[in-house]
Amino acid sequence: MAGKPFIYLDHAAATPVDPAVLRAMQPYFATDFYNPSATYTPALEVRKGLEVARAKVAHWLGSRPSEVVFTAGGTEANNLAIHGVMRRFPEGNVVFSSIEHESVLEPAGNYECRQVAVQPDGRLDLDNLAKKIDKNTVLVSIMYANNEIGTIQPIRQIAKVVAEKRAGRKNLPLYFHTDACQAANYLDLHVARLGVDLLTINGGKIYGSKQSGALYVKAGTTLLPLIQGGGQERGLRSGTENVAAAVGLATALESVQAGRHQETKRLQALQQEFFKLVEAKIPQAVINGSRKWRLPNNVHLTLPGQDNERLLIQLETAGILSAAGSACSAANEEPSHVLKAMGISDADARASLRLTMGHQTTKAAVEKTVKTLAGLLLLTD
Amino acid sequence: MAGKPFIYLDHAAATPVDPAVLRAMQPYFATDFYNPSATYTPALEVRKGLEVARAKVAHWLGSRPSEVVFTAGGTEANNLAIHGVMRRFPEGNVVFSSIEHESVLEPAGNYECRQVAVQPDGRLDLDNLAKKIDKNTVLVSIMYANNEIGTIQPIRQIAKVVAEKRAGRKNLPLYFHTDACQAANYLDLHVARLGVDLLTINGGKIYGSKQSGALYVKAGTTLLPLIQGGGQERGLRSGTENVAAAVGLATALESVQAGRHQETKRLQALQQEFFKLVEAKIPQAVINGSRKWRLPNNVHLTLPGQDNERLLIQLETAGILSAAGSACSAANEEPSHVLKAMGISDADARASLRLTMGHQTTKAAVEKTVKTLAGLLLLTD
Repeated sequence: MAGKPFIYLDHAAATPVDPAVLRAMQPYFATDFYNPSATYTPALEVRKGLEVARAKVAHWLGSRPSEVVFTAGGTEANNLAIHGVMRRFPEGNVVFSSIEHESVLEPAGNYECRQVAVQPDGRLDLDNLAKKIDKNTVLVSIMYANNEIGTIQPIRQIAKVVAEKRAGRKNLPLYFHTDACQAANYLDLHVARLGVDLLTINGGKIYGSKQSGALYVKAGTTLLPLIQGGGQERGLRSGTENVAAAVGLATALESVQAGRHQETKRLQALQQEFFKLVEAKIPQAVINGSRKWRLPNNVHLTLPGQDNERLLIQLETAGILSAAGSACSAANEEPSHVLKAMGISDADARASLRLTMGHQTTKAAVEKTVKTLAGLLLLTD
Repeated sequence: MAGKPFIYLDHAAATPVDPAVLRAMQPYFATDFYNPSATYTPALEVRKGLEVARAKVAHWLGSRPSEVVFTAGGTEANNLAIHGVMRRFPEGNVVFSSIEHESVLEPAGNYECRQVAVQPDGRLDLDNLAKKIDKNTVLVSIMYANNEIGTIQPIRQIAKVVAEKRAGRKNLPLYFHTDACQAANYLDLHVARLGVDLLTINGGKIYGSKQSGALYVKAGTTLLPLIQGGGQERGLRSGTENVAAAVGLATALESVQAGRHQETKRLQALQQEFFKLVEAKIPQAVINGSRKWRLPNNVHLTLPGQDNERLLIQLETAGILSAAGSACSAANEEPSHVLKAMGISDADARASLRLTMGHQTTKAAVEKTVKTLAGLLLLTD
């Protein structure tokens, strides 16, 4: 599949593994393959590799290493947060936004749950949040940045609302979880600054390997595990540790976090260029989601009257790979629940494209994409 | 960590990734990294790689591809089987043997459950099994071959007992699950011949990568998922698929299954040599577990009066890496529940060693190991 120079604009769905990440993972497959729970020295060296990775992840989260639980991916981490808290406190309820990822919506749907509305720009309605939390709410789960529209939520303000509701509680706890799978490339992940108790990261979206991930679990937060057995990961994720994945995740996180200011600046310039060109050449296009509170790599457009499935195929023919919505629901015929929650009609949802940039995206790619799209629309108008 | 020529006798704890497996995995990290749920052609190619892997696993299980659910490891697959059935039928009970792995014992412990006794040689007591299954039993989970003592269970006979108990049932189902994590290197995995409804395989024990695995789920078996979200793996394991791991698992399974007769013959000869040398040079040693129904790579000894922790360190000093029990419980101070179930005293359990051979094990390694062990015992007697 090499050779064809695609313009890849679906980084929210998957990122290629960074060569440095793959190099860091390699020794743990065939050489340092020992079970980290074994007692001989080469196994202790593997254990050390795992714990160094944990400390590295903790560094970028501003947490203790013991607060980092490695999981097999972001979906698993979200499930561990939701099921873990809700099974521990079955008398409680869970509050989440109407634009969460399926890996939060689906587990939350097993319990007493309340959805918080978002404004038309995708930002959480804080007043509505405050109303939805009651004395039995044990978990609030609000994603840091949305996977479809790139909208960044006011996590610190949400944490303040949660803290106010938590004050004076005696019986049930009230935890705040954020799904930072899409945010980790560009935003501050310092858990104390954010004010979160649980935070999900996903290697597969930050140039690490698929099904690498972690859940930050603040000390004192009591969860039940999803997967039980040998008691690895302090009992929260049993199974022989995937040290290659953990080391890869740590390397990927370090790389994106260390470079996030520079990459954000670069991509914001491309994003502005993208918007400017769209406004000039495709004036009928509507840009969805907050322009201000937005991941720098996300462009989300509605092209009224168009069919996004047809456009995706035509774009691919022109060498441009993009998406209609989240990959997780690509096979699903239903219009996006995210766009619906923002008040966008089903017809407009079916006329929408998500274009998500990444490390390899250039200004030339942006120009070619808008030009191609404008040409396609002229042909069909 | 390269250079030092260890004799590695802990293949039950971890196997190195086979070079052919790693080669098969490589493209899916940085090149064919696309999300298999995306709609463009390169993503469809990745999806195809995943489905070819699934068909390959199905081939060796004698199942349909749609009956193979990829999981992040054997522990996760065992949890999916146990929690998946028991949460679906909460009025039921689960029956398992007293020598199951922690990844069966721990999840089963959440439900109404009954343990089946084993005989002193580690083989299941079939009469006891028949007594423990009642009209509310929905799941029987018996491991194919034990991770500590290598004892192979009579899976087909167990399946017959289960089938008799199932006959005439109207309300609740009765499923038979087997944990084949240790068996997959050497034994027939054909699910129809075995008569199982659920079967666990684990890449990390068959020269694949850690946290690669699969659960065979016979068509018509209804399970609830552990991990919910985008609905991947027919809703039974959400999360962007780890295609590298799946392709690696399929390659590893094919390799060990295609070579199993030859490797079994080779290792059985080494195992007989091992036993013969032990009997000649360490006459006080007791060989635990069935000699006849035994994985060809397993040697398990009690050395009365010895301290296995000290022996492990002395063996390592001599360049031999081995284990006292399962790696999952290596950190645990409790004597092995497997040995206890066989009627072995705590003192004898603490005087026991597990030596598990693999692809790289040679006759010279066996000879050196027994010679070293005999020398150590002479020193301390």
